[in-house]
Amino acid sequence: MPYIPLPEHLPGITGLLEYRLDTAMPIRELTQILLRGDAPAGESSLTQGERELIAALVSSRNCTNFCEAAHTKAADLLLGETETARAVKADIETAPVSEKMKALLQVAALTQQGGRDVTPAAVARARQAGATDREIHDTVLIAALFCLYNKYVDGMATVAPTDPAYYDILGDRIVNRGYNRPPGGHPAPPPAATNV
Amino acid sequence: MPYIPLPEHLPGITGLLEYRLDTAMPIRELTQILLRGDAPAGESSLTQGERELIAALVSSRNCTNFCEAAHTKAADLLLGETETARAVKADIETAPVSEKMKALLQVAALTQQGGRDVTPAAVARARQAGATDREIHDTVLIAALFCLYNKYVDGMATVAPTDPAYYDILGDRIVNRGYNRPPGGHPAPPPAATNV
Repeated sequence: MPYIPLPEHLPGITGLLEYRLDTAMPIRELTQILLRGDAPAGESSLTQGERELIAALVSSRNCTNFCEAAHTKAADLLLGETETARAVKADIETAPVSEKMKALLQVAALTQQGGRDVTPAAVARARQAGATDREIHDTVLIAALFCLYNKYVDGMATVAPTDPAYYDILGDRIVNRGYNRPPGGHPAPPPAATNV
Repeated sequence: MPYIPLPEHLPGITGLLEYRLDTAMPIRELTQILLRGDAPAGESSLTQGERELIAALVSSRNCTNFCEAAHTKAADLLLGETETARAVKADIETAPVSEKMKALLQVAALTQQGGRDVTPAAVARARQAGATDREIHDTVLIAALFCLYNKYVDGMATVAPTDPAYYDILGDRIVNRGYNRPPGGHPAPPPAATNV
């Protein structure tokens, strides 16, 4: 049960983002820009799917079930398959992603551990694989942002639905509508959703 | 040396916030709302100084020298003395703050460790000492936000000036102008600032 009263039909981050709309707005905006924005030509080739992989990996390392499930689903939808996100979370080095993406996912994993854990060698590996300044920057900031989300969601003891159908709907909404507030707030979850 | 080229006269977070102005804007806005905003009557009595203590404590636990020095200075200026911030960072339980503040600082410290480390007992202690829903919420979100900052600042290997005069000026700016972008960007640091 959450540590503060939140609407039962708004699990995970969704209830927190309705609890304080004034703080939710810049959190949503930052996420929309980082995960959905376009970079100037040549500055970043990170696809939306690759950015969702970073979010899913970090949430998985923080053991934040709600965020892990939501962003895994978003990555799956954007990539058109479910194998890559699963593999990235199990073992970055053997996952079916480019060498550049492996290096950036390792930078994200180190950022999750602690900012000081990001080593010059990890960054050099990403550069050698072709990563740009902007891609290195964005990887660290996406990882840091999802540590904020994960600490917020778990630190307030929010509820994570166990029904996969919930994340099918949430993932679809993230992919097709983005991170800004839906008009009128969050719709109700699917009827079958059960909470733990 | 930072992992991406940043202006030498903009150490710590300041160079990062100029590197991508689009992502910096919502980060600044969230900080301004959380650390400087007023709560509706009865919802939160956390002073700006108390909120800066949370920021300084979390940055200290993450060993992020730049943020720790900046927010310690801001807390010192807002509280009108330097003892409380020093004591909070050394040992929350013996620091000269209220029982409610001790309990909230422990919630912030647990959030820094990991969202799942925030226990019902830690939250119950804060409630028994008079903490409101909003104060518990804001404590967790401030702690999570400073984990974002700390991971961003250290994960990009930004430079922290060693000259205390730098933080005197930065602390004064934080207290008197807030977290929004200064017109024209960041002013130059004091001439004596030396970087490590």
